[in-house]
Amino acid sequence: MSVRNVKILGVGKYLPKKAVMSEEIDHRLRKKCGWTEKNIGVTKRYFIKNETASSMGAYAAKEAVKHAGIKLEDISCIICASGSMEQPIPCTASLIQKELGLEKSGIPSFDINSTCLSFVTALDTLSYLVEGGRYENVLIVSSEIASVGINWKDDKSAALFGDGAAAVVLGKTPLQENSKIIYSKMMTFSEGAHLSEIYGGGSKFPPNLHNLTEETKEQFLFSMDGVKIFKMARKIMPNFVNTIWKESGLTIDDITLVIPHQASKSSMELIRKHLNIPKDKWFSIVKNHGNMIAASIPTALYEAIKEEKIKRGDVVILLGTSAGLSLGGLLFEY
Amino acid sequence: MSVRNVKILGVGKYLPKKAVMSEEIDHRLRKKCGWTEKNIGVTKRYFIKNETASSMGAYAAKEAVKHAGIKLEDISCIICASGSMEQPIPCTASLIQKELGLEKSGIPSFDINSTCLSFVTALDTLSYLVEGGRYENVLIVSSEIASVGINWKDDKSAALFGDGAAAVVLGKTPLQENSKIIYSKMMTFSEGAHLSEIYGGGSKFPPNLHNLTEETKEQFLFSMDGVKIFKMARKIMPNFVNTIWKESGLTIDDITLVIPHQASKSSMELIRKHLNIPKDKWFSIVKNHGNMIAASIPTALYEAIKEEKIKRGDVVILLGTSAGLSLGGLLFEY
Repeated sequence: MSVRNVKILGVGKYLPKKAVMSEEIDHRLRKKCGWTEKNIGVTKRYFIKNETASSMGAYAAKEAVKHAGIKLEDISCIICASGSMEQPIPCTASLIQKELGLEKSGIPSFDINSTCLSFVTALDTLSYLVEGGRYENVLIVSSEIASVGINWKDDKSAALFGDGAAAVVLGKTPLQENSKIIYSKMMTFSEGAHLSEIYGGGSKFPPNLHNLTEETKEQFLFSMDGVKIFKMARKIMPNFVNTIWKESGLTIDDITLVIPHQASKSSMELIRKHLNIPKDKWFSIVKNHGNMIAASIPTALYEAIKEEKIKRGDVVILLGTSAGLSLGGLLFEY
Repeated sequence: MSVRNVKILGVGKYLPKKAVMSEEIDHRLRKKCGWTEKNIGVTKRYFIKNETASSMGAYAAKEAVKHAGIKLEDISCIICASGSMEQPIPCTASLIQKELGLEKSGIPSFDINSTCLSFVTALDTLSYLVEGGRYENVLIVSSEIASVGINWKDDKSAALFGDGAAAVVLGKTPLQENSKIIYSKMMTFSEGAHLSEIYGGGSKFPPNLHNLTEETKEQFLFSMDGVKIFKMARKIMPNFVNTIWKESGLTIDDITLVIPHQASKSSMELIRKHLNIPKDKWFSIVKNHGNMIAASIPTALYEAIKEEKIKRGDVVILLGTSAGLSLGGLLFEY
């Protein structure tokens, strides 16, 4: 257990201009009106119109930088922490740097990817570099376009995902303040590596070598075995969370808010009960955002801060699963 | 400047079974026999036959783990540091974990991507987590399949690239030993973001939305403006390297070996001269490997260690450019 004296200095978010209501999803999926809201728990999500991952990321970043009270030039490192990419080459962080007008700045920019947990992994990892004095103000951006990879034949995942971006600025905690990362843990169980995936588009199934047929098209789309993932999560999550409590020395009573990855409402609710987390400490934004891949957790963090669900001094846990299959937990004093 | 007391405990590499000689490339590019060797400086490179990025990565990892004198179960974190990916979801580190038979281990696994500099960025970044006591033995794997993304209409890049993988195990330096990372620096200038790229395949130009025509096919392939990259590198590299010498307090006289990213022989040679680095301190493997994207630097490091060009106590610099456009330098005592 190693505490890092870092502080979330600012947060930002961006949602695409196009809000998509669940009636529209019901219609597209040929479901009865109300199906999506009832079964997935999502009323509204956003799909890009003309936005790119880097333009959304830059909007969120600008708000986070302003909220932190710094200038763009004060950023010492840019991390893109997303499960989706804008282009295979270069990394998306570089494209975000360009969108921010920092193309001559030299600010080091690279990507960290653990799919839906990318933000948690980046926050966790970069905190050591801030603590170690390498970087002063780290900008972490999660910007996701899920809508282009939706398989509309798979109603449960199609109804769940949305696009958007969120960003934080992470810096060293000023003297006489108490903000810190208290504890963090990640575990990967690749026996679940193919339970949620996009099979095609990388070196195993390159887009330039496969003509687009009905069959190959599906290889480029997201697929998940929701039931198996849920079963696996239910099996390994309690041990994981118990380890967090045990190793951190904290309990749920010390926590002001749990910010989970935003999966479907029903599966989140089952996991919450399974982990014995009181309803009033469990923060969900899935109803109005859907699952935004890695942008889910920082967007929920943004909302929790703006809605004053968490204040300086409160202890918060970020908690989630991701394709891989990975588990992540990060305890911090805001 | 912050020294990290970390040690490269072991190295490994894997080359695909299929060696491709430059005569074959000459023929495919409809060039006179000898063109590739003369103009690009590559005699041999390897292309995958039935290998995947994760299978190659696992082979290299096993050798590195053995060389480090540890067991697979002793790995505390797996980083895939590649510029190409096996699948868009999940991250390649998770697929490597599975190939290593560690699918039930829980070992945290994620990707770090700064294109050709991914290995240097991962080594640099994770050294802080080893130093901070978070992870004991970090496995960093760069596994690249460049061959599937080659645009055979672009002779200079087509003749340059090769596939392969390399891995290192990074751990804390034992007491009374001196291995350390002395200094590291990264800079990104996204004004060069589109000088080398794969435009299509991500959210901006998704493979599922574009039928494969001669025109769209090229969007999924690698393109680079070699002349502009070289001009940009020649302009910004000397300042970058001078900053490294100035901030680290070292000079080229303190260095046993420079391990550069493996670009074409002629551009490497021009950069070497421009940086005033003596020929005998400049280590190139491009002749027998080609440019292996992020696997280039760790493969060269592997060869330098195996050929005893560097021994414990020697000071080495890893130095390169990558799409982004980024510059990276890392000084370490082996």
